[in-house]
Amino acid sequence: MDIALFGFGCVGQGLYDALGQSHGFKAGIQKIGVKDRHKPRKIALDHFSFDRHEILGRSDIQAIVELVDNAEDALDIVRTAMQRGLHVVSANKKLLAEHFSTLFQLQQDKGVALLYEGACAGSIPIIRNLEEYYDTETLRSISGIINGSSNYILTRMDKDGLDYHTALAQAQELGFAEIDPWLDVAGFDPKYKLVLLVVHAFGVIFKPEAVLNLGIQNISAFDIEHAALKGQRIKLVAYAAQHGNQLQAYVLPRLVGHESNLVNIDNEYNAVEIEGAFSGKQLLVGKGAGSYPTGAAVLSDVAALSHQYRYEYKKLHQNIAANGHGLHELHTDFTLRLYIRYTHETELALLDIKETIEQYTSPRAKYLIAEVGFASLYALQGKENKLFVAVV
Amino acid sequence: MDIALFGFGCVGQGLYDALGQSHGFKAGIQKIGVKDRHKPRKIALDHFSFDRHEILGRSDIQAIVELVDNAEDALDIVRTAMQRGLHVVSANKKLLAEHFSTLFQLQQDKGVALLYEGACAGSIPIIRNLEEYYDTETLRSISGIINGSSNYILTRMDKDGLDYHTALAQAQELGFAEIDPWLDVAGFDPKYKLVLLVVHAFGVIFKPEAVLNLGIQNISAFDIEHAALKGQRIKLVAYAAQHGNQLQAYVLPRLVGHESNLVNIDNEYNAVEIEGAFSGKQLLVGKGAGSYPTGAAVLSDVAALSHQYRYEYKKLHQNIAANGHGLHELHTDFTLRLYIRYTHETELALLDIKETIEQYTSPRAKYLIAEVGFASLYALQGKENKLFVAVV
Repeated sequence: MDIALFGFGCVGQGLYDALGQSHGFKAGIQKIGVKDRHKPRKIALDHFSFDRHEILGRSDIQAIVELVDNAEDALDIVRTAMQRGLHVVSANKKLLAEHFSTLFQLQQDKGVALLYEGACAGSIPIIRNLEEYYDTETLRSISGIINGSSNYILTRMDKDGLDYHTALAQAQELGFAEIDPWLDVAGFDPKYKLVLLVVHAFGVIFKPEAVLNLGIQNISAFDIEHAALKGQRIKLVAYAAQHGNQLQAYVLPRLVGHESNLVNIDNEYNAVEIEGAFSGKQLLVGKGAGSYPTGAAVLSDVAALSHQYRYEYKKLHQNIAANGHGLHELHTDFTLRLYIRYTHETELALLDIKETIEQYTSPRAKYLIAEVGFASLYALQGKENKLFVAVV
Repeated sequence: MDIALFGFGCVGQGLYDALGQSHGFKAGIQKIGVKDRHKPRKIALDHFSFDRHEILGRSDIQAIVELVDNAEDALDIVRTAMQRGLHVVSANKKLLAEHFSTLFQLQQDKGVALLYEGACAGSIPIIRNLEEYYDTETLRSISGIINGSSNYILTRMDKDGLDYHTALAQAQELGFAEIDPWLDVAGFDPKYKLVLLVVHAFGVIFKPEAVLNLGIQNISAFDIEHAALKGQRIKLVAYAAQHGNQLQAYVLPRLVGHESNLVNIDNEYNAVEIEGAFSGKQLLVGKGAGSYPTGAAVLSDVAALSHQYRYEYKKLHQNIAANGHGLHELHTDFTLRLYIRYTHETELALLDIKETIEQYTSPRAKYLIAEVGFASLYALQGKENKLFVAVV
């Protein structure tokens, strides 16, 4: 099996090392496509090419691995490769979630595989399990901690009493958070992953903009202490569940108690909990970020390609057969009980508060516990504001 | 896909229900083979046959599912089916572990599949993940709680302060333990499962009699309290790890601390932790026993058969290619630090105690913490004695 690799950052180098040391599987990396001619590289320069189209035109490769930063470049590389009949492995959740329908259609039209285990929860083989093992099982819900950066920040705030900005800086220093952490801490990254999980778990394609995500960017030490007083911890949780023939799906901070499987998932670890009608609750835990864990997931996809493996999208095809199309409306007409910490009452005006359960005011902080119309939360998404909201 | 089912006990009925309610996959159960003509059945009598050879001779089935109690019957059914070119799904760990080489060879010779996800850790898709996902990964170790009955007993002793016999009776009442609990509580059942895991994780076939198992049948409330004083809990852990080019593999009670992923796996839940060179620590948790969880695992195997799935034993073939054969010696020349509670000093004579670290004597109990030559522990295996031994 001969491949080309695009991108030689953290995950690309992890893949390179994992492939070099794997006893079970060898693939030849014919070329590594990178952009920056002047960056120092760990391996000899003749491994690299700076011409993407030269690489994609080679006749000696059967597949490419796409691990580049730039979203436009990534889309062009993946689309061009598939159109030319090359199989693709990608770990780019943003690209995959935003262009899912196009990339799904290209797989069908061109008869090529697109695998993306490394895009979702790092080293945890969640897509493969949903696709191959839970295909016969009616799933009730899937929920998880699937953003390593946020989880690292929350863990350090909780365990070391750090404030948010110190914990973020530490995560950046250790390579667990990007220089621009917005996609992670505001919950966009786990939302993209959730969109992929929902395709394989429930057979439904959502556009990312339809799925609510609020993040941890406004969290304070007060919130962590408040949770601890109730014997709980705050985690950023991606969640999707069946509700009749509609689905709820969102990413929100959540106060989790010690009865939860997610409560002790710390630092850069990820966890996904699946609830099946027959199998009951299943939990998968593993490292959600980092060069080697994600590199190992990408390697497993490359090896699977060599066995002619491709996702069959069994649940999606079942739904398309049943409904004529795979795109569904989200269920948004429900209320959630939320912890809402605010600075001024005016900030609450955006929220459809149905009922206030608790109200707290002190010189240090103000919060409500209230039943809130879910749809009103979209007004907060991706906006600068000072509210911190968590499901209780 | 048309199949025959042998056995209609707990798991057989779970499979029947799961198959009836699956949207993703339908298989026709042409006949259910059972022994007892007089047992009342939940479904109409014309579903059943009492003649195993009539069923195995049918031309309208492509596969059988073997879920019978009797070991000899099970072996005859599985072997005959495979010889006749039928694919087989089995959840019978004892059968599989004891006859592994024969059943492996039959798969090769007859070109049929033998799948057994339900035999190992109930609903957790561990065999499938080892086979399909970790095939490219060098695994360092695998360890887990893979006996639901023992884990239920240990949990109730710990949480409710029950003594061993009361907890066992409760487990039996709830259907989590057999009327004859010996295979479970003495650690034979998890050993059979460990033998299967080792094939797929390390590509090595061990005979079950070569693998040490000591169980929880001698545990007392004192042991649980002793562990709690040290901030630990006692779990029955199956363990295998690479040691140079040899393997350590054993089932032993273990004192686990709160840093361990296994410490909060309670009641009938199972958990398997895999440590990969690149992927790091991975944990899979799910129900390890019960009609529906195991039935769902068996159903997933039946569905996989319909997609022409079969285990490729990639690691076993790698090892056979490297060593000429797949059977290896176990590494037994090492010491383990153990907690050993005893009644009389004479009971310790069997053990190769290299160094005593702690010694405790009171009217209530006597114990040692000591470094013990591993090989000497085989003398205790499956024997009536009063020692309780746990890895510290």
